[in-house]
Amino acid sequence: MSKLTFGAGIWHFATYLDRYATDGYGPAKTLIEMIDLAGQVRDLSVVDINAPWSPDISVDEVEVALKRNNLSVIGITPEIYTREFSKGAFTNPDAGVRRRANEMCNQAADLVRRFGASYVKLWPGQDGWDYPFQADYKQIWRYSVEGIGELASQNPDLKFVIEYKPREPRVHMSYSSVARTLLGIEAMGLPNVGILLDFGHALFGGESPADSAQLAIDHGRLFGMDVNDNLRSWDDDMVAGTVHPIELFEFFYTLRKNKWEGVWQLDQFPFRENCLEAADMAIDFLKHIDGALDRLDWDALQAAQDRQDAMGAQKIARQALFGF
Amino acid sequence: MSKLTFGAGIWHFATYLDRYATDGYGPAKTLIEMIDLAGQVRDLSVVDINAPWSPDISVDEVEVALKRNNLSVIGITPEIYTREFSKGAFTNPDAGVRRRANEMCNQAADLVRRFGASYVKLWPGQDGWDYPFQADYKQIWRYSVEGIGELASQNPDLKFVIEYKPREPRVHMSYSSVARTLLGIEAMGLPNVGILLDFGHALFGGESPADSAQLAIDHGRLFGMDVNDNLRSWDDDMVAGTVHPIELFEFFYTLRKNKWEGVWQLDQFPFRENCLEAADMAIDFLKHIDGALDRLDWDALQAAQDRQDAMGAQKIARQALFGF
Amino acid sequence: MSKLTFGAGIWHFATYLDRYATDGYGPAKTLIEMIDLAGQVRDLSVVDINAPWSPDISVDEVEVALKRNNLSVIGITPEIYTREFSKGAFTNPDAGVRRRANEMCNQAADLVRRFGASYVKLWPGQDGWDYPFQADYKQIWRYSVEGIGELASQNPDLKFVIEYKPREPRVHMSYSSVARTLLGIEAMGLPNVGILLDFGHALFGGESPADSAQLAIDHGRLFGMDVNDNLRSWDDDMVAGTVHPIELFEFFYTLRKNKWEGVWQLDQFPFRENCLEAADMAIDFLKHIDGALDRLDWDALQAAQDRQDAMGAQKIARQALFGF
Amino acid sequence: MSKLTFGAGIWHFATYLDRYATDGYGPAKTLIEMIDLAGQVRDLSVVDINAPWSPDISVDEVEVALKRNNLSVIGITPEIYTREFSKGAFTNPDAGVRRRANEMCNQAADLVRRFGASYVKLWPGQDGWDYPFQADYKQIWRYSVEGIGELASQNPDLKFVIEYKPREPRVHMSYSSVARTLLGIEAMGLPNVGILLDFGHALFGGESPADSAQLAIDHGRLFGMDVNDNLRSWDDDMVAGTVHPIELFEFFYTLRKNKWEGVWQLDQFPFRENCLEAADMAIDFLKHIDGALDRLDWDALQAAQDRQDAMGAQKIARQALFGF
Repeated sequence: MSKLTFGAGIWHFATYLDRYATDGYGPAKTLIEMIDLAGQVRDLSVVDINAPWSPDISVDEVEVALKRNNLSVIGITPEIYTREFSKGAFTNPDAGVRRRANEMCNQAADLVRRFGASYVKLWPGQDGWDYPFQADYKQIWRYSVEGIGELASQNPDLKFVIEYKPREPRVHMSYSSVARTLLGIEAMGLPNVGILLDFGHALFGGESPADSAQLAIDHGRLFGMDVNDNLRSWDDDMVAGTVHPIELFEFFYTLRKNKWEGVWQLDQFPFRENCLEAADMAIDFLKHIDGALDRLDWDALQAAQDRQDAMGAQKIARQALFGF
Repeated sequence: MSKLTFGAGIWHFATYLDRYATDGYGPAKTLIEMIDLAGQVRDLSVVDINAPWSPDISVDEVEVALKRNNLSVIGITPEIYTREFSKGAFTNPDAGVRRRANEMCNQAADLVRRFGASYVKLWPGQDGWDYPFQADYKQIWRYSVEGIGELASQNPDLKFVIEYKPREPRVHMSYSSVARTLLGIEAMGLPNVGILLDFGHALFGGESPADSAQLAIDHGRLFGMDVNDNLRSWDDDMVAGTVHPIELFEFFYTLRKNKWEGVWQLDQFPFRENCLEAADMAIDFLKHIDGALDRLDWDALQAAQDRQDAMGAQKIARQALFGF
Repeated sequence: MSKLTFGAGIWHFATYLDRYATDGYGPAKTLIEMIDLAGQVRDLSVVDINAPWSPDISVDEVEVALKRNNLSVIGITPEIYTREFSKGAFTNPDAGVRRRANEMCNQAADLVRRFGASYVKLWPGQDGWDYPFQADYKQIWRYSVEGIGELASQNPDLKFVIEYKPREPRVHMSYSSVARTLLGIEAMGLPNVGILLDFGHALFGGESPADSAQLAIDHGRLFGMDVNDNLRSWDDDMVAGTVHPIELFEFFYTLRKNKWEGVWQLDQFPFRENCLEAADMAIDFLKHIDGALDRLDWDALQAAQDRQDAMGAQKIARQALFGF
Repeated sequence: MSKLTFGAGIWHFATYLDRYATDGYGPAKTLIEMIDLAGQVRDLSVVDINAPWSPDISVDEVEVALKRNNLSVIGITPEIYTREFSKGAFTNPDAGVRRRANEMCNQAADLVRRFGASYVKLWPGQDGWDYPFQADYKQIWRYSVEGIGELASQNPDLKFVIEYKPREPRVHMSYSSVARTLLGIEAMGLPNVGILLDFGHALFGGESPADSAQLAIDHGRLFGMDVNDNLRSWDDDMVAGTVHPIELFEFFYTLRKNKWEGVWQLDQFPFRENCLEAADMAIDFLKHIDGALDRLDWDALQAAQDRQDAMGAQKIARQALFGF
């Protein structure tokens, strides 16, 4: 079995709100409490942290909490999707707000340096549009590309990863698909911008996640990934492996095939579930997949794919995943 | 032109949260402030109010605010989808929570009486399930039917309307479609339970909203309705008429065809828009539709439908709606 | 392991056309050839046959072919979706076409008697509408209910099963969902009309197929079922178990839980695959599921469901299905 | 009003088959009959023709038929999606089939020259995959890019346009979105390959078609376009303007804003409708849109977009399109 590192967005251990349960799905938690929960997950060693966090918690306190839980930081996710940014961060019509987004991301960059993390993660969920005729698409896309390009130029020592998604909270997101994001990254022409591929976002976008991974890898831009599950029509952020185990298996098959190395991360929102159980549940499945990749008949599978033999390929995959 | 009454859910004038913009899309508003906003909408005369509201606002104060804005109450919507009910209101596995949902709805019933409103509106958004294997479907459906049946039996002097939706916040809602809801209502066998048909929910569910209205009418169960718009794959609660004007027109065509009388209500969530503009925008469109229904060649349209002549029917509808 | 009977629609062994590959995905086959192919599938003992078939093949010849392949007939599916019925069979605006649909179904009924089959299967794929304003929905639904009611009344000795689907080939099908179909059946008020629940159609319609089965069973109307798979947004008729194994497992779990007994049928369209491999592939998966149901901890699962414990329930299901 | 040229795929005037109505939605028509029908459409002056056509019709005969109907040819669409290509044209695992696809496209190129048409239109509907694990995605994409690149290199005097679509008939198409197609075209690095943007395909893919047009224009690759309508979840090829008039208006708004000049083409499949009525219906709507673009307050709309003022922008668009 390969030696895996598992990670999670720290929000996996948060309490959630939505537009109906405005009082939240449970009592609010501090960042420190979330870190202490993360520390209880078997096999979890890496977290992605949102910033800024509450001003009454210092960076030192966070560092101490991480240390006592044997956790390190893989990325910092600036919160460029809160009230101020409701009409966009990089694409906000107000130049002052765009500036503020840039500053917030630069502060996140400082935290990346401080924690020795791998990247600033950009999830521009408010960058896009809702209504027909609302947006000047040329302008929106120009801002999308220039805003992230500017950030990456300001911080050539760091990596920036873009996590695309078709929609939510905006009805259309600007960075909506793997191909769109690659187009934007190529337009930036910088070495330090890549993709954080979310399995569920690809599924939601009608992509085959394994194909999305291959495309990003072939452009040298797969800088990170995370997994979860959904019903394909929304970003449900359910527990990985509970709905689409076969495509999840294919996703990891593609990563290993390309010798892609990196953290296997969770991006789950266990609204009504115990967050520890949800994390363990997913990681157990990922370990099963890892074992299945060891058992897989790689040559036979490649041969089946070379003739597009769907039944043959599925039989081989099934044998490894289900054991019959 | 027919004499129309326009209404809106009072939440049209609220500020929203979601799982990303947890600080809300603007400063919070009190119920009184929302009522005062509603009062500023041209042509709005009726509102649906969520209950319970903040305990520091008395019923008398609400009544005064309504009066000064010339607003009356059409329905009360008990908040059976907040934290306590995150695993369901009528279907919650905890009998105590189911009891509390019943109590909250009975309190809403009292408010209906107090305000001389038309109905208690039930939107059981947390009643359903998320994961495969999570729920005992027989049990969930039994609870769904019995819970509302009990309420209606306890309050035979009042009407109860069920607003179905395919999903959100649960990944599957128990009252998911017009037909499913009618099945449940027929199982209750009570005269005072009906449907509140949300145009956007029908669209989201892959229904033809006009067909849904016809079916509910044919069962004598169309007790109310509201409109909005979306991209068909989610309950976006956008402004009515901005995306699907033709199906909206067909919806109202069906209502008038059946001589259905009732308030034309808005159920919109203008997250990033001015709520007054969003209401006026929608009502202007509804008035245009009402005028188009006056201009429509009803006999010719019926004749086209009798031969399923799609082009002929569309031509007649287009003439009335677009004027060419 | 329970003693299972496996079946398939005989079209599983046909060659397909679509609007692009108008020359078909392979050379055409006669019904006899299809039966001989079906006979080669391990474990297949029952078929559903479309009628009418080519006039140069007699019923006797079909019977001989079935016999030599040890196959019996479970149902006859009248082809009420060909050119003549392109604007509907039961709902066609032309009374003569409606009459012809009735005759064709009565002829199918005779074949059911002749073959000692279980039912006439009705799949009214052309009954519905395409464009807004095209149809008089009240009329369409009345025809839908009366047409099948008439058939069932004419043949009280036989069963009729309705296979619902959201759409295709019509943009909206009249019998679109499990609940809608049950509403229609209840309106008929006859004991001999039920549902043929297609797993993929339920999935395509946004239903949880296990919930659909439960609902049909609770109405005493689950007369048959078939399985396949798809990407949820279309009726892809892919091989069962290749995309959504967990929901498929839950579907059969629900059948066994209710002690539902009947044939486990395939409704697959292996456009580009070897039809024998596609059938074996699916049946192997179904047998694995059957074994998993034997291994399942039923009491623990029920207990988890009784508290809506998603993680607990999934863990139990996973153990049985994946073996860890 | 601008001077418009209207066109249509010649298949608009064909008779269709699908997997159910295998006898077709009417009697088959010859290419000459289709051309004679196209000639009867008011305002139609340009057609796109599939090739090869039946060998018993000569190119000269086609030319004569076009001439007598005052029609010219805008593009030739090679039929690279029939039986032979059911596992792909450019991506077929069999090198011989890939070769044959190349030859068929080169023959189409010759027809483009012969007819003085604008481009070879490539719609690789069978290029993609169906099942998880079936395909080597790297290989498929490499073949997709190289196959079209080779063609374009062989014919530097001609244009090649790629019409992308998310899926159908394959469950996933290789050229699935505007961004993916642009990525592929950029990888080819040739000046004579562009996009044929189908409004309905963009809608089906969850794109905002106006945004897709802007992106293709900004890459200098919008070589052609066609319109139709659908319910967003499938390529229904319904009549343009019958379901989504506002987004269709926005699409043409974007074209004019960019001073894009080209034929306004129809890609409709009137399965059950009179093809002449369906064409006239659509063209009437397009003319209405063209007039609305003349009436539009362009400066005010741009100003509204510059502040992402959805309500303001919609009001301006509504005024032009609906006249109130």
